[in-house]
Amino acid sequence: MVTLQLASCTSDAWIEQARQHIDLILLDHANCEKKAAGNALSLLFRYPAHDRLVEALSPLAREELQHFERVHRHLQRLGIPVKPLSAAPYASRLNQQLRRSEPEHLLDALLLAAIIEARSHERLGLLALHAPDPELQQFYRWLTAAEERHVQLYLDLALAHFPTDQVQERLNTLLQVETEILSTLHPEPRVHS
Amino acid sequence: MVTLQLASCTSDAWIEQARQHIDLILLDHANCEKKAAGNALSLLFRYPAHDRLVEALSPLAREELQHFERVHRHLQRLGIPVKPLSAAPYASRLNQQLRRSEPEHLLDALLLAAIIEARSHERLGLLALHAPDPELQQFYRWLTAAEERHVQLYLDLALAHFPTDQVQERLNTLLQVETEILSTLHPEPRVHS
Repeated sequence: MVTLQLASCTSDAWIEQARQHIDLILLDHANCEKKAAGNALSLLFRYPAHDRLVEALSPLAREELQHFERVHRHLQRLGIPVKPLSAAPYASRLNQQLRRSEPEHLLDALLLAAIIEARSHERLGLLALHAPDPELQQFYRWLTAAEERHVQLYLDLALAHFPTDQVQERLNTLLQVETEILSTLHPEPRVHS
Repeated sequence: MVTLQLASCTSDAWIEQARQHIDLILLDHANCEKKAAGNALSLLFRYPAHDRLVEALSPLAREELQHFERVHRHLQRLGIPVKPLSAAPYASRLNQQLRRSEPEHLLDALLLAAIIEARSHERLGLLALHAPDPELQQFYRWLTAAEERHVQLYLDLALAHFPTDQVQERLNTLLQVETEILSTLHPEPRVHS
C-alpha cells in the first residue's frame, strides 16, 4: 500500500499572502487548471498505447478544463481582469527531476503529477477555509474532493506500471525535493508560491 | 453572412484508400482528436483575456477529448493495436499560413481551425457512408454533426473579433491553399491525406 503524504505543511505565511492577493491566486489558479489539462494531454500524446493511462487521463483532462471554466467564471463574477502572470518556479523546478529515459520518465511524470495534485489539494483546502469570499470558500471545498481523487488516480497509474517498492522509493525522493522547493516562500502570490 | 464552403470535394481515391486502410485512418483519427483538443487549449493559453474565446474553446476542447475516447474504444473493439503514426503534411502545411503578428495571427488561427473542422466534417461524413463496419458508420454519422458545429463556432469567433470583409477575404485565400495541399493524395492513408 502506497500513500502520498506531503513532507511539509503549508506555512501561515502562504495563507496570509494568498488572503491578501486572492485576485492573483485566482488568476494563477486558472493557469494551473489549464496546465493540468495540458500535462494530461501531453501524456496522452507520449503514451498512446498505454490503454489504462489513456482511459484515465483523457477524462481527467476534461475535468481539469471544467475546473478552469469554473475559476474563469469566478474571475468574471469578482470583476478581476485577466492579465498575463509569470508562473511560480515550482513546476519547472519539479520537472527538473524528470529522468529522460523510459520507463523512468513515465514513473517520474506520474509521481510528479500526483505530488502537484496533492499540494494543490492541501492549498485549495486552505483557501476553502480562508478565502475572503463565501462563494469562493464553497467553490474550493467542492474542488478539493476532485484534487484528492486525482492524487490517487496518478498514484494508481504508477502502481499499475511499476513495482510497489520502486514507486515508494522514488515518491519519497520527489516528496523531499518538493518540500525543499517550497521551503522559501516565493515573493509573488501563487497557488504554489 | 460568411459561410465556409470548401474549394474542392474529396476524391474517390481517398475514399478507396480510407476503406482499404480503415485501421490507419482510425489511428490517425484518434491523433486528430487529441490535436484538436491541444489546438483549442493552446489558444486558451495564448488569448486568456478573450472571454468569448475562452468560453467557447474550453468546452470544445472537452468535446474533442470525448471524441478521442470514443475513437479509442473503437480501436479496442476492433482489436487495432495503437502504434506511432506519422502525421500527414496537411496541418503543418496549413500552419505555414499563420501570420506571426497580432491580430492577424488570431484571425488565421481561427479560420484554419474552421477549415480543418470543415474538411474533417466532409471526410468523416464519407466514412459514415463507406466505412467497412456498421458500428463505425453509425459513429461517424454521430460525429459529423459535432464537426459541423465546430466549423461555425470557429467562424463565429473570427466574426466576433474581425470585420466581415476581412474574414471573408482571408477565408477565401486559406480555402484555396487548403485545396492545393490536398490536390495530391498523400501516399499514406490519413484523415487528411
